[in-house]
Amino acid sequence: MLALSIDMGGTHIGCGVVRDNELLGSSSLDSERAESLESLLPCVTAALKKILRESGVTAGECHGVAVGFPGIVDVRKSRILSTLKKYEDAIRLDLEQWAIEQFGLRLRIENDARMALLGEQYAGAAQGAQDVVMITLGTGIGGAAMMLGKLVRGAHSQAACLGGHLPVNYRGRKCACGNVGCAEAEAAGWSLPQIVRETPGFHESSLAGVAHIDFQTLFAAARNEDAVACAVQQHCLYVWAANAVALIHAYDPEVVVFGGGVMQSPDVILTFVQKYVEEHAWTSWGTPRVRAAVLGGNAALLGAVPLLSEDLRHT
Amino acid sequence: MLALSIDMGGTHIGCGVVRDNELLGSSSLDSERAESLESLLPCVTAALKKILRESGVTAGECHGVAVGFPGIVDVRKSRILSTLKKYEDAIRLDLEQWAIEQFGLRLRIENDARMALLGEQYAGAAQGAQDVVMITLGTGIGGAAMMLGKLVRGAHSQAACLGGHLPVNYRGRKCACGNVGCAEAEAAGWSLPQIVRETPGFHESSLAGVAHIDFQTLFAAARNEDAVACAVQQHCLYVWAANAVALIHAYDPEVVVFGGGVMQSPDVILTFVQKYVEEHAWTSWGTPRVRAAVLGGNAALLGAVPLLSEDLRHT
Repeated sequence: MLALSIDMGGTHIGCGVVRDNELLGSSSLDSERAESLESLLPCVTAALKKILRESGVTAGECHGVAVGFPGIVDVRKSRILSTLKKYEDAIRLDLEQWAIEQFGLRLRIENDARMALLGEQYAGAAQGAQDVVMITLGTGIGGAAMMLGKLVRGAHSQAACLGGHLPVNYRGRKCACGNVGCAEAEAAGWSLPQIVRETPGFHESSLAGVAHIDFQTLFAAARNEDAVACAVQQHCLYVWAANAVALIHAYDPEVVVFGGGVMQSPDVILTFVQKYVEEHAWTSWGTPRVRAAVLGGNAALLGAVPLLSEDLRHT
Repeated sequence: MLALSIDMGGTHIGCGVVRDNELLGSSSLDSERAESLESLLPCVTAALKKILRESGVTAGECHGVAVGFPGIVDVRKSRILSTLKKYEDAIRLDLEQWAIEQFGLRLRIENDARMALLGEQYAGAAQGAQDVVMITLGTGIGGAAMMLGKLVRGAHSQAACLGGHLPVNYRGRKCACGNVGCAEAEAAGWSLPQIVRETPGFHESSLAGVAHIDFQTLFAAARNEDAVACAVQQHCLYVWAANAVALIHAYDPEVVVFGGGVMQSPDVILTFVQKYVEEHAWTSWGTPRVRAAVLGGNAALLGAVPLLSEDLRHT
């Protein structure tokens, strides 16, 4: 099956043409400073048409357009229900109409973390597994779950995509979502700088001179045995491991996939979380495998074919 | 529909005959000191036959036997997968054979917290709702979830019944399940006495003289403004509320039902949790309602008809 695929990220929009589990061509549009999604749509159209040409594929050969969106999405109604300070105009855009006008194709839209899980399950780290949870570590923590071969969506399309918002520290930090002590508030990109600054000894740490503290600088400083970096890295590992156990207890998966930017150096995370899961998850049937995502930034784009193929009648 | 129903609790076994959402008759067997389930089965048989006689119902009119069991159960195979220090011989008992021999009836067995949710959804606090989570506060914390009208079970029958084992304090207390900081470890009957004893000021508290500290004594002492009791009660309320938010984010329900012994004085719990959920749960569609279970100890027995009626082919 051929399809057009769009991944609307916080800082860029990925556009691709896929054939089954293969990306025939793709490009990335900078969206960081864009004021609205509407203003970007002509660029998305042009990018997709260019990739089609370069791939030697016509829109007519494609089965549809799949969109991954960073917000709460009702796939059944192709509607965006809630945005998160990004593309806020998307709720009132008629993307189905846009896809028909520009490509003569039907459109399906789904939460981006769910799309990434679909991609990894169809073509990546969770191939063959029917029961999967995915944790995407980035600016926030994305969540998604598949049970018995079907995405977990829930009555209001909110289930499992809030996996990073299970509280792991009920008297902990305030989260951007309004809750307290979410995994995301305790160990994600947006909360990391403050966590580091509040760690005792910060002013003597090599991180004190870093303008923008992210996980890459944290992990590098920890490798250099910076005490503050080591303490914060250890804290984050515990949070992510506890979040993994929470999701295992919630959804009963066989595979836990960790994705996102932090996974450029996955060994320390996977080793820690796998051991933690073996010691702490209650799974009488065996132990879920903890794996790194393998599709990187293309995971959501490769979720296009499974999304467009899905029978939504019983979702 | 008529059915026989059995609720195997930690300290007693409830036996009943139900007609749809109505309990025609029931009795309770003490099981606290029983060494095995096998030794109790003749008493269960006799109790059910007695209730049948007294209810004017014959076994032949019943559609089956439904069993709620405190452990991990595969309803599809009518098999107990894992026990929790209670009825450990149950794994090797052939309960289906027992039901045929004694009553000529088919048998279905399910986790007891899931049975309680089925009961409350069919005949109690969650009637009419298709998306429900239930938290049963007792010696442990039982969990169950229904999404889109179907019980959440998962690949290995472990999903949602471990709702009390979502970690809410990732550096917290060791749980009996092997995990750290589960809601159950932080605020359930078995962990309560130690939590109270470790609270600063315990020796000056009215609770210092209490041989067996349970939630009833805790809440009574808090009403008398005992400082330690107030602090621990507040701690428990936060844990239960955080657990509710975790389950809301995981399963996207419309109704959250709190059941179990603690709910004899539900007002303080419901008021606190409802407010916490309103302030902290991320639910763009509205706010889940927090309710007390209304069926008390009969919830699991009244899960019999929905359990026996369920089409298990797609579970």
